[in-house]
Amino acid sequence: MNKKTLRVSPKSIERLGVYRRVLQQERAKQKTHIFSHQLAMLCGNNAAQTRRDLMAVGYEGSPSRGYDIDALCRAISALIDGEDKCVAVLVGVGNLGAALLEYVEKRCPHLRIGAAFDSDHAKTGRVLCGVRCHSVDEMDEVIKRNGAEVGVIAVPGRAAQEVADMLASSGIKGILNFAPVALRVSKNIYVEQIDLAVALEKVAYFTRRKDYVKKER
Amino acid sequence: MNKKTLRVSPKSIERLGVYRRVLQQERAKQKTHIFSHQLAMLCGNNAAQTRRDLMAVGYEGSPSRGYDIDALCRAISALIDGEDKCVAVLVGVGNLGAALLEYVEKRCPHLRIGAAFDSDHAKTGRVLCGVRCHSVDEMDEVIKRNGAEVGVIAVPGRAAQEVADMLASSGIKGILNFAPVALRVSKNIYVEQIDLAVALEKVAYFTRRKDYVKKER
Repeated sequence: MNKKTLRVSPKSIERLGVYRRVLQQERAKQKTHIFSHQLAMLCGNNAAQTRRDLMAVGYEGSPSRGYDIDALCRAISALIDGEDKCVAVLVGVGNLGAALLEYVEKRCPHLRIGAAFDSDHAKTGRVLCGVRCHSVDEMDEVIKRNGAEVGVIAVPGRAAQEVADMLASSGIKGILNFAPVALRVSKNIYVEQIDLAVALEKVAYFTRRKDYVKKER
Repeated sequence: MNKKTLRVSPKSIERLGVYRRVLQQERAKQKTHIFSHQLAMLCGNNAAQTRRDLMAVGYEGSPSRGYDIDALCRAISALIDGEDKCVAVLVGVGNLGAALLEYVEKRCPHLRIGAAFDSDHAKTGRVLCGVRCHSVDEMDEVIKRNGAEVGVIAVPGRAAQEVADMLASSGIKGILNFAPVALRVSKNIYVEQIDLAVALEKVAYFTRRKDYVKKER
């Protein structure tokens, strides 16, 4: 990977992940090539943006046949996945945490959830989707033993900052936060936040706008 | 609401939802005012963008004291929430669906999940977080009876398009899709997609970049 590809923005990385998912679906339909405007349409994006994103992975299509789906998937994977399997830990094994364990096991071959944590003693010691749930008291030791670098926070909002502090002090460098709280963490920790309530409110807003029509791009 | 405010972009609506959540948290700490750069920092945004977004709700702060938190919350709510409670339905009552029911009940006073659907007969007839789970065969009738306009898809990828078609034919105008599939729907249906796997891959990518440092903005 050259230095240029290291400067890909978070939004671009997210779109590349979506392109890859859609490309894999097209490949499963026995398609071999796709044009940027087709890929863009399937991803709800515009063609110019899609071409810019794909230039970041150093891949150009043929003007007559478009992109080779197989080669493009490999190029995106080479950028996004890296060489070693990334180890993550999950804090909070409620419904959302359990859903995430299923997703990762099925769909993220380059990621592994090494351990889960919960403050509920009824959950500790149990194994879900092949992942053992530990007490939060063991977090530091288990994270270090697993070499985990990513933490997923799926605890209630009131507990999220304390969990983030514990993850940071155990050496975690990236956090996916589902708690509806703005985390305060050091600048070298990457935080991605997903707020299910905000997402649903957004859909409700555009649903109420009876004049909503998706733009042709 | 005037015509101007109707042209707010999806990204801006999403940021406004996040601002509101953070403002509510600051209010809970007894704060009464906040400057745009402080709000921006708490939301991981930049101050200029934050000021532009807040102009969309027709609200300006005072140069000396910043924004009045209470009034700004009300202004954002007036834009995002609308006058009537929005009714949504959930399709797929697995772990993710159950997590969403909890979130909405606790955190979305202007939204109501009117009904849930699942193809698993062991789930139909049950009530989760006050929401009754129906058979998917009843979808059309139950959606119309509830006046639901928003559908949440939390089923496996292979079933998602069929569910989207059923929701659309029942009059649903907005979809929050958690299935890792690009849905084909008519242009007047708003679709928001959340892919948990893509989100986690994105965090893993920036975690591997050992040079990641959040930009000062």
